[in-house]
Amino acid sequence: MLQFSGSFTRLITELQKLPGVGEKTALRLAFHLLKYPDNASALAESLREVVTRVGFCSVCFGITEVDPCRLCTDNRDDSAICVVEEPQDLLAVERTRAFRGRYHVLQGALSPLSGVTPGQLRIAELVQRLEGGAIREVVLATNFSVEGEATALYLARLIKPMGIRVTRLALGIPLGSDLEYVDAATVQRALEGRSEL
Amino acid sequence: MLQFSGSFTRLITELQKLPGVGEKTALRLAFHLLKYPDNASALAESLREVVTRVGFCSVCFGITEVDPCRLCTDNRDDSAICVVEEPQDLLAVERTRAFRGRYHVLQGALSPLSGVTPGQLRIAELVQRLEGGAIREVVLATNFSVEGEATALYLARLIKPMGIRVTRLALGIPLGSDLEYVDAATVQRALEGRSEL
Repeated sequence: MLQFSGSFTRLITELQKLPGVGEKTALRLAFHLLKYPDNASALAESLREVVTRVGFCSVCFGITEVDPCRLCTDNRDDSAICVVEEPQDLLAVERTRAFRGRYHVLQGALSPLSGVTPGQLRIAELVQRLEGGAIREVVLATNFSVEGEATALYLARLIKPMGIRVTRLALGIPLGSDLEYVDAATVQRALEGRSEL
Repeated sequence: MLQFSGSFTRLITELQKLPGVGEKTALRLAFHLLKYPDNASALAESLREVVTRVGFCSVCFGITEVDPCRLCTDNRDDSAICVVEEPQDLLAVERTRAFRGRYHVLQGALSPLSGVTPGQLRIAELVQRLEGGAIREVVLATNFSVEGEATALYLARLIKPMGIRVTRLALGIPLGSDLEYVDAATVQRALEGRSEL
């Protein structure tokens, strides 16, 4: 049986650690990178650069090359803070241009099954920011998954007693969707959350 | 609008050059690599290693860390040579343990539409090997795609006049398949190629 060379096998192993990359995809990617060594070198270089230069903001825990990040230092509304699970969620909210306040990235969601407890998230840091007193509204923008919902509930119970308004992104039918294909639980929640026209 | 830092954007750009990786996947991979910097560093390292150490065998053009590769220097049958398009195809044949001859990797297939002409493949090198005189059979194992079939036909016309036996992998119904779901063209070719029992 043909054995791949050591370094080629190691590359396949490393590629397989990426999310959504199985053995076949890793092999395909590895052959591609071997065929285009310039791409492989550029990828290696930019990986190194990201590891060295990009880190987490010490205030909001989003990703940044300068600390604190621009979102924390720019002229924005200091009275509202939007809480998200991951940096990419921050991006999803920011993309809308509809929120001008600050952000806080939890770096995960509560998940008793996977052993993620409040201590492993950036919740203590959030509470510390809220104790500053400037914040009047916390917008919970955790995902609408079991974990995200549980995290939102946990945070609401923690923050409300501090006298701060806690809101949650609306749950409902996504724009452009056919009611017929939306899951029943979403329709039910959209019905419960119906508004006057 | 949030702008990502330069090095993060560069990483996303590099990841998007990988086959099957679009903008969303690149973003997901980049965030993953940022979250696990050890994985990112190890991947960068193994990419560098592959680029430096792994290359193409100067005899068969398969991938190798030593030149000529083991498949070319091992004690194997020198009278048969199996011609494949890419190194991964060589692997697919070798995995069967049913072929004990040598290999030749064309590094592509003829494709007039994409502008791939015989001169861009390792065909001249194949002919040179055949002129050595030791080879009595060439097994064409190019893909069963339009390009692979065209390449096989081209090679057969080129090699037959040299007095060498040219064979092609059998085209037929794959093992374990339901005739009902096999495409008509394959069934037709399987019928034409039927054998006595």
